[in-house]
Amino acid sequence: MIILKVGGSILTNKDSESEVDTVSLKRIAGEIKRSLDNSAKELIIVHGAGSFGHPPAKKHKIGERFSPEEYCQKRVGFCEIQNEVKKLNMFICEAFIEEDLPVIAIPASSFITATNKRITDGNLDSFKRYLNKGFIPVIYGDVVLDNELEFCVISGDQLIQYLAMNLNPTQVILGTDVDGVYDRNPKTHDDARFFERFSSLEDLNTFEGTTNVDVTGGMVGKIKELLFLADLGIESKIINAEVEDNIFKVLENEEVKGTIISRGN
Amino acid sequence: MIILKVGGSILTNKDSESEVDTVSLKRIAGEIKRSLDNSAKELIIVHGAGSFGHPPAKKHKIGERFSPEEYCQKRVGFCEIQNEVKKLNMFICEAFIEEDLPVIAIPASSFITATNKRITDGNLDSFKRYLNKGFIPVIYGDVVLDNELEFCVISGDQLIQYLAMNLNPTQVILGTDVDGVYDRNPKTHDDARFFERFSSLEDLNTFEGTTNVDVTGGMVGKIKELLFLADLGIESKIINAEVEDNIFKVLENEEVKGTIISRGN
Repeated sequence: MIILKVGGSILTNKDSESEVDTVSLKRIAGEIKRSLDNSAKELIIVHGAGSFGHPPAKKHKIGERFSPEEYCQKRVGFCEIQNEVKKLNMFICEAFIEEDLPVIAIPASSFITATNKRITDGNLDSFKRYLNKGFIPVIYGDVVLDNELEFCVISGDQLIQYLAMNLNPTQVILGTDVDGVYDRNPKTHDDARFFERFSSLEDLNTFEGTTNVDVTGGMVGKIKELLFLADLGIESKIINAEVEDNIFKVLENEEVKGTIISRGN
Repeated sequence: MIILKVGGSILTNKDSESEVDTVSLKRIAGEIKRSLDNSAKELIIVHGAGSFGHPPAKKHKIGERFSPEEYCQKRVGFCEIQNEVKKLNMFICEAFIEEDLPVIAIPASSFITATNKRITDGNLDSFKRYLNKGFIPVIYGDVVLDNELEFCVISGDQLIQYLAMNLNPTQVILGTDVDGVYDRNPKTHDDARFFERFSSLEDLNTFEGTTNVDVTGGMVGKIKELLFLADLGIESKIINAEVEDNIFKVLENEEVKGTIISRGN
C-alpha cells in the first residue's frame, strides 16, 4: 500500500484565501489515474489544508493555550476551520472523481483525538474497510480535540506518520513544491545544497545547525515526522509534485529527483 | 439531549440539483441560535441529502444488487454521492457557523457500516466527545459500506433512529415541509385527516390500509423509523420547519402543531 501526500501548497493558490489551483489538481488527478490504470495499487491520499485551513487556524490561534472566557469563540473557530478544510477536500475529491478515482474522505476530526498536538487515538478500521474494497481513502490536515489543549490542528504530515506507523505501507511519498530538502531555500539561494538522503535525527541536527538554515515553510516539521517513520524502518521520499509526471513516475517506481528519509544508508 | 432533524427538502431547492435554499437555511440557523441563547441545550443536528444526494443516488442505483462488472462504476458513484452530500453539509455548516453555532460534521460514511441497508456498526464515541465539549455534532444522509449489498444509502431518518437508540435523547424532533402526518397529501386534498399521534405499528397498518394513502414523499419511511424508537420508549415529533418560529418553539418546549410518535397514549 502506498501513502501519497499532496501538499496544500500545490493544490491551492497561496496568494488568495480558499482558492483551488484547478490546473495542478487536474494534472495530479490525471497522473494518479494513469498510474492506477497501468497497474493496480492500494493507495491512501493525504492532503494539506493550504490556503483554506491556514488563515482561519492562524486567526483563531488553535493549538495555543487560552483563557476560559475565550472557550466559546475558540470552539466556533475550530468549527470554521473544519468546514474550510472540508471545502478544500470537496473540491479535491470532485476533481479526482472526474478522473474516475474512487476517493472517499475520512476526516481526521471525525475519529482522531490528540494530546498536546500529537495523535493519541484514532481507530483506522474504516481505512482498512475502504482499502479492502478498492477505494482510495482521503484524509487531510484538520482540527481535532486535544486532551491537554482542548483543540489542536493536525497537519497532513503528522497524519502520514500516524497512518504509516499503523498501516505499514510499502511506499510513503510526499509531493511538495520543491525538489526535496536543501540547506537553504533553493528558490533564493543558488548555492543551496541538496540532500539526497536523511538518515537520522543527527542529520537533522546538523541540518538545523547550519548557519544559513532557510528551508521552505514547514520542511523541518515534515522531516521530523518522517524521521519517526525512518526509526520504525519505514522509508519515505519527498519529491516535487509541481514537476509534470513526477507523481506518475514515483507511483510507478521510476527514478524521480527527491530526498529519501530512511534509517541507515 | 435533543436530536433535531432538518429535512433536505427544506434546506435545498427541490427543482434544481445541488442548490441550497439559503433563506430557509439562514432562518433555521437563527432559530436554533435564539433557542440556545435562551437556555443551554445539548443538541445533535441531522440533515437530509435533499437535491444534492438524491439525483446521484438514483443515477447510480446505490443499494440495489448489481453484477460484478458494474462494481467499479458503482464504487465511483458511491464516492460521487459522498462528495455531493458533503457539499450540502459544507453549505449548511457555513450558515450555522455564521450564527456562531459550534457545528461539527461527523459523516456517517466515515464510521458507520450497514447490513442490508440497516446500520449494524457505528461507534458513537466521537459524538459523545464533541457533545461533552458543547459542540453540536452534525450528521447527514450519506452512503456507507454494506456487508450484504457492498454499498447503500443511509437516510437521515435512519440516522435519527440509530442515534436516539444509542444516545437516549430527551427530545427527537423532525422538521419537515408538512405539519405532520396526514392520511392524504394535505397540499392536494382539503379533506386530508391529520394524525396528532401515532402509537404503534398497528396505527401504521391502518394508515397504510386506508384507501387514499397519498402521503408526502418518504413519510411512511420516517414513521417506521420513529416507531422503532417509540417501541423503545423514545417519543418523537414531526413538525413543519417551514413555518417560521416552529423550530425555535419546539426547542423551547412550546406548543407547535405536529404529529407525536410514541408508545401508548
